[in-house]
Amino acid sequence: MLSSDSPAPSSHAFDEATTLTLATTPAAGGAARFLARTHAGYQNMVGPFGGILAAQALRAVMLHPDRLGEPVALTINYAAPVTEGELAIEARPTRTNRATQHWNVALVQRDAGGGEATVATATAVTATRRATFRRIDAVRPDAPAPSELPRSVVTGPAWLGRYDMRICAGDFPSRWDDHESDSLTRLWVRDEPARPLDFPSLAALSDVFYPRIWRGRARMTPAGTVSMTTYFHASSDELAASGAGHLLAQAKANRFVDGFFDQSGELWSEAGLLLATTTQVVYFKD
Amino acid sequence: MLSSDSPAPSSHAFDEATTLTLATTPAAGGAARFLARTHAGYQNMVGPFGGILAAQALRAVMLHPDRLGEPVALTINYAAPVTEGELAIEARPTRTNRATQHWNVALVQRDAGGGEATVATATAVTATRRATFRRIDAVRPDAPAPSELPRSVVTGPAWLGRYDMRICAGDFPSRWDDHESDSLTRLWVRDEPARPLDFPSLAALSDVFYPRIWRGRARMTPAGTVSMTTYFHASSDELAASGAGHLLAQAKANRFVDGFFDQSGELWSEAGLLLATTTQVVYFKD
Repeated sequence: MLSSDSPAPSSHAFDEATTLTLATTPAAGGAARFLARTHAGYQNMVGPFGGILAAQALRAVMLHPDRLGEPVALTINYAAPVTEGELAIEARPTRTNRATQHWNVALVQRDAGGGEATVATATAVTATRRATFRRIDAVRPDAPAPSELPRSVVTGPAWLGRYDMRICAGDFPSRWDDHESDSLTRLWVRDEPARPLDFPSLAALSDVFYPRIWRGRARMTPAGTVSMTTYFHASSDELAASGAGHLLAQAKANRFVDGFFDQSGELWSEAGLLLATTTQVVYFKD
Repeated sequence: MLSSDSPAPSSHAFDEATTLTLATTPAAGGAARFLARTHAGYQNMVGPFGGILAAQALRAVMLHPDRLGEPVALTINYAAPVTEGELAIEARPTRTNRATQHWNVALVQRDAGGGEATVATATAVTATRRATFRRIDAVRPDAPAPSELPRSVVTGPAWLGRYDMRICAGDFPSRWDDHESDSLTRLWVRDEPARPLDFPSLAALSDVFYPRIWRGRARMTPAGTVSMTTYFHASSDELAASGAGHLLAQAKANRFVDGFFDQSGELWSEAGLLLATTTQVVYFKD
């Protein structure tokens, strides 16, 4: 097992998966078009792990030559299954203010007819941040240290192997028999192998929770995120201080109804800082 | 005072404010362009109440002739101040699936140079919903009945007068002296005069909370939402059942840091259904 302060290898799967190649240099204030590829190491049951698509979308914003400041908000809408292979990511600033900037992002793939189809859309806000009053109002969940918990045994889609997960509460149901329980999962999680945290990896970690319907109802029914929003509270200094350590991640559903449920989540550093809050709404089959 | 079952007047300010005129009929799968106007009754300190812009954006989606199903998610990004007068709203389906549909929305205004500038962007997801397993996992906050609480005295910007608000907890600080307190506000709220709830009015109600920094720090500092996301859990049947009654609304901040804070909120019907969950990230000045 790698300890959390091990140096990241020179080519980490996360960096491979979020490598973007500039295909169209933007005119001033215009769209930059990047090419990306799906990565076998981040495949989920149908298409890529949603978190890696969020990371790719955010990286396109961050690589745009006109980008101002650091990410504050990211919303990604998963519009269609992403097939293996190439995808194009277009990032366009919709408004640039003195200290904030708004972004539209589109992820597109070649469709069967040879045209292009939108597979995901995103919006983002970046901002130049300054030190102000600071306070954390959310209550950090109780949890034993990550070293005191076993790493979850990885079975299932490839992307699970890209994370070191240590469940504190709300593991998979022990029986898939439709018994109901609470919908909360709390875990320590980091990239595997360990890798210093950055904004794209924090975006990816926002989607690390298995579907709340599986937890709440003990039924492994098809489920897929349709929209996810992450707010980045951490500055790049705080990300640097978090390093390659585990994050304490927690998510719970608020309501299951008529084919959709939502989820509210938090990502905390080991030092006790709330690095991100995240919500998503998820389709599920009964 | 109107009781909650009074019939809505024939021309309600909310309907006036969210009236859209189709300016460009969309080609199949294309953008529909609508014209709207700011409404004096919904003005905030700088520009319109953000909730009314969210309602206008959602109404553009709902009026698009190709719209499929009911709203599931809405994210609106407030990119720039909206000046009084005309605005154009473009709604475009980015992807239409069998049961879900994804939307991009842009709110634009004429700028000083005679061109058009983006003042807000939005994404939405609509879906045809079917009855499935249902459960509410969030805990409904305790509150006395709305009839047992006084209506808040309205002072300040015009939009406050468009709502009947009855504070249960977390009213404005009694002294603006930088004393710290929790960042939670809980209130009963409905349109004033009473008006049957629909998706646009639920979107507007998502933004009804005064800035959490005012509550948490007792300092009336400039603050403005930069991005808001609402998940609609209610079906149109549930909205109809909620009628023109009050909603129990609650919001609290999770973190204040480096010029931004976030807020997590819930909107409950009087009958105890969680109709919507909502989050936003807000700029604030120290």
